[in-house]
Amino acid sequence: MGVQAYSRLADVPEQVDHAFIMVPEVEQALEDCAARGVPVASIYSNGFADAGREGAARQARLIERARSLGVRLLGPNSMGIVNLPGRVALTVNAVLEMDAPPAGAISLLSHSGTMLGTVLSRGAARGLGFAKLVSLGNEADLGVGELLELLAADPDTKVILLFLETVRDAERLAAAGRKAHAAGKPVVAYKLGRSALGEALARTHTGALAGTDRALDAFFRDCGIVRVDMLETLIEIAPLLAGRRPPALKRKPRVAVVTTTGGGAATVVDRLGLHGIETIAPDCASPIVDLTMTATPAQYTAVLERLLALPECDGVLAVVGSSAQFHPQLAVEPILAAQPRDKPLAAFLTPHAERSLALLGSRGIPAFRTPEACADAFAAYFAWRAPRPQRVWHAPALHADAFGLLRSLGIEVVEHAIAEAPQYAHSIPYPVALKLCSAHKTELGGVALDIADRAAFEAQARKMSEPRLMVQKMERGLAEAIVGYRDDPLVGPLVLLGAGGTLAEIHQDFALRIAPVSEAEAMEMIEEVKGLALIRGYRKLPRGDREALARAVAALSKLGLIEGRPIAEAEINPLIVKREGVIAVDALLALKE
Amino acid sequence: MGVQAYSRLADVPEQVDHAFIMVPEVEQALEDCAARGVPVASIYSNGFADAGREGAARQARLIERARSLGVRLLGPNSMGIVNLPGRVALTVNAVLEMDAPPAGAISLLSHSGTMLGTVLSRGAARGLGFAKLVSLGNEADLGVGELLELLAADPDTKVILLFLETVRDAERLAAAGRKAHAAGKPVVAYKLGRSALGEALARTHTGALAGTDRALDAFFRDCGIVRVDMLETLIEIAPLLAGRRPPALKRKPRVAVVTTTGGGAATVVDRLGLHGIETIAPDCASPIVDLTMTATPAQYTAVLERLLALPECDGVLAVVGSSAQFHPQLAVEPILAAQPRDKPLAAFLTPHAERSLALLGSRGIPAFRTPEACADAFAAYFAWRAPRPQRVWHAPALHADAFGLLRSLGIEVVEHAIAEAPQYAHSIPYPVALKLCSAHKTELGGVALDIADRAAFEAQARKMSEPRLMVQKMERGLAEAIVGYRDDPLVGPLVLLGAGGTLAEIHQDFALRIAPVSEAEAMEMIEEVKGLALIRGYRKLPRGDREALARAVAALSKLGLIEGRPIAEAEINPLIVKREGVIAVDALLALKE
Repeated sequence: MGVQAYSRLADVPEQVDHAFIMVPEVEQALEDCAARGVPVASIYSNGFADAGREGAARQARLIERARSLGVRLLGPNSMGIVNLPGRVALTVNAVLEMDAPPAGAISLLSHSGTMLGTVLSRGAARGLGFAKLVSLGNEADLGVGELLELLAADPDTKVILLFLETVRDAERLAAAGRKAHAAGKPVVAYKLGRSALGEALARTHTGALAGTDRALDAFFRDCGIVRVDMLETLIEIAPLLAGRRPPALKRKPRVAVVTTTGGGAATVVDRLGLHGIETIAPDCASPIVDLTMTATPAQYTAVLERLLALPECDGVLAVVGSSAQFHPQLAVEPILAAQPRDKPLAAFLTPHAERSLALLGSRGIPAFRTPEACADAFAAYFAWRAPRPQRVWHAPALHADAFGLLRSLGIEVVEHAIAEAPQYAHSIPYPVALKLCSAHKTELGGVALDIADRAAFEAQARKMSEPRLMVQKMERGLAEAIVGYRDDPLVGPLVLLGAGGTLAEIHQDFALRIAPVSEAEAMEMIEEVKGLALIRGYRKLPRGDREALARAVAALSKLGLIEGRPIAEAEINPLIVKREGVIAVDALLALKE
Repeated sequence: MGVQAYSRLADVPEQVDHAFIMVPEVEQALEDCAARGVPVASIYSNGFADAGREGAARQARLIERARSLGVRLLGPNSMGIVNLPGRVALTVNAVLEMDAPPAGAISLLSHSGTMLGTVLSRGAARGLGFAKLVSLGNEADLGVGELLELLAADPDTKVILLFLETVRDAERLAAAGRKAHAAGKPVVAYKLGRSALGEALARTHTGALAGTDRALDAFFRDCGIVRVDMLETLIEIAPLLAGRRPPALKRKPRVAVVTTTGGGAATVVDRLGLHGIETIAPDCASPIVDLTMTATPAQYTAVLERLLALPECDGVLAVVGSSAQFHPQLAVEPILAAQPRDKPLAAFLTPHAERSLALLGSRGIPAFRTPEACADAFAAYFAWRAPRPQRVWHAPALHADAFGLLRSLGIEVVEHAIAEAPQYAHSIPYPVALKLCSAHKTELGGVALDIADRAAFEAQARKMSEPRLMVQKMERGLAEAIVGYRDDPLVGPLVLLGAGGTLAEIHQDFALRIAPVSEAEAMEMIEEVKGLALIRGYRKLPRGDREALARAVAALSKLGLIEGRPIAEAEINPLIVKREGVIAVDALLALKE
């Protein structure tokens, strides 16, 4: 094609900034790069960590050599990079066959190489321009965290999209998320693996409940990364977030809707409702401003400006019907002309209206093709939180037994004693509960509650026929909760709060956060757990002591602060919530091996 | 535009088949139609049932007059009809500005007039052709049921799409659904109103739980209508269903996936997993056949044919990466050339590939733009059931009191008696439960369980201080269930089965069916209720008597067969499920006013 090629790197006369290695002899190519002073190489070749144990060993050797040579690596198994403002395309992705891919301010880091083409081609058709697109591959050296740091500092980049299959270095990614936030650059993640139940279900409930995907949800929230549910949202949401900060609403979010099609608007309003987002209209019984068949461009503009100025709404959605396809002057042009405000203005077009979608996109107005992605984007935007501030916490002391640990954290523990055969003597006042000392008590029938007196106690103890039994004072409350701490292999310390009992487990009804949390944050978790409605005054039931529950959650969440993080898991199950106070009646502690 | 127009209907020399009324003087226009012998008129004008009480009265008068004149009406408030094979367009929808809307075999009935344009323009861009499109408007005369009957008999129509805001005549729609099924024409519904909590929450739990949208789910399932979740699926699913019958799988559905992009396939596989659909590949550890960067057209074809012939898979999905945009010969053409089988073959294209999508669509191959709609369509297809066969059921007798009614249905009822002040004498053996005779016992603290003896009983009865109290033998079981019957104003008799207790209510954990149901259908309902895992052997807990529970559900479901349907609601809450048998400990019966 008229461009000079060389068969050996050594023959290239100019300085080489970045090599792209496609040959099987990757190791030799790396040596050539080092000899030629190439600072970074992308490796498309596979056969490394993507190819079993032998491949992983080969990758380890490669990286060690690269480090000693001072060459940074992208991949292996990477499709390379595209830098549109810089007019650099080091990739095998076929998307480069498209005419003039548009430069702009959206950057992408992706575990999937083909997603570079998907995002670029779909985005281009929608009027969106891109800056840097990077295929991460195996992340043997350069990982998503370090690259996100670079994009946070990149003047070309304003919004950063992540297409993730896993998270390999949560700590660095979290730090990079904070840097991007500080630089005013929203970060959006689409992550695969939501339907997988996690690598292996851990022994305890906490492990089982805090499946990896929910843990990553907590992680993204913690470091200010917006998570979207749908693939199309990943692309469409960029203009909605660009230049914005996380909305810090203290109530349900509200969107004002103006439309030229009642049915079209209803499809989004219905979906927004599923996400807990309300729609409002001024001076109007209907939840939308419906201009079907009556709108003139002047009217449409007037309504838009009025809604944008409405203090009680947090976003404006303009729905456009068939005019979007053939008569853009009616509604699309008024949307383009609307004055930017502190709240987002987005559009959903009901017909096939590619040109209008692209026109809106190219002018920085978020434009959606489907009601579902539109609602997903608004939901993601309203759920967006600033990264949690880093605070100084006080580390608790380690205790080897679970109840002792809880007491040292200030959590009240049930009065209990070990009764030993053959007498099973104890001094706990009746009624009592009697338990086997092993785990999985429920399945084994190893719990007897509400034993009224010594005679019943002895009968029960003989029936259980174990040398050591746990006797506890019988405690009652308004509800049971489960509070767990877990040092997750992917994202580190987590704290979990769920409703107690088997049903709550079946319904996967829990709130999860990166630990530690404050008492105020624990109060938010209490609000999230559906089953804890039982202590929030549901159906006029008496209210439980939410403050005491929040204190217990916050206290347990501090276990990750202990020097060396020796605790793998800790769990209170159940923690009985009373009108006043909470009390732990069973607990479990697992130290790391 | 060179077409002769007339200012008065009387002046038209030809026979008029169908009038389209846009003038405010609808009543006069109707008279003119009758005088001229016009058999049917579509009314675009509004100001009828869409405009409050006065409008509703006007509509009633209009319909009465039309009936006496023998003119059938579509609307009012209808955007009219489009008949593409017949080249008739009686509509104000702007979609007719598009060039040559494609004729084909898909028809649409829509409550929203603008959806005619949305479906037609989006479908046309995707290579899909349409037959009849009808804007239903207020359905004052011609309703969705009658029109669906016509489409079931229409030789131009092969697949029928419904865009619904409500259901006004469930009985006729159900009958039409059955006719369409008998004619081999799949019917697909997208229905608004999923996030609304229903017009008013009924007094009892059953009413509260069986919100209208879930009732419509049960209704669609009952009459063989496929329901989709996303708007785009409504359009994209048509080729997937055309010419097919409901798959009657007895196990989890399985889709075989071949792809030229690992990441692209993963986005669908992940989503399919969320819908409970498994992906399989032959002789392969991976759940997909990944031909990324290695496929030739011949290889792609060979894999496709192999997957289509695989007896253990129920559908094949071909995912195509960037080649779909620039090199259709690689994978798109092999898909087009694949031999049709008894199972569906669908495609998901990851890049912006409008022409390939349209090419596939025009050749009858379901092609999806997003992983979400693709998974939604497969989930809807696998959930598709043939309409339930109409059976002859035996109607039970009516009893005025709830427990008496249950006994007559063969459902065991707790031993109980009314104890009256001041003695509160009764002959129920201890331990007993004591209850207020009024509803909402939980909130009022009006239930005392497990009263051991007469002394405790008297103390409790005095505390409740009501002249009449219900005394019951204390019953225990493995779990509690709630079984309800309700004569729904929209869809008629419904039967509900849920896990018992407040938590189940909070989680909206129930199964709902059009009543009556057989014992086998009730067994399916038991499997659907998450909380009933407690009696299905969850975590090695003892199993409950599912057969007895199914018998109780089937028995209660027959209440709608009583002559005149006098019962508004009936509920057993809780029904205690034991290792052997079930027993009703509380029940409620509400007759219609």
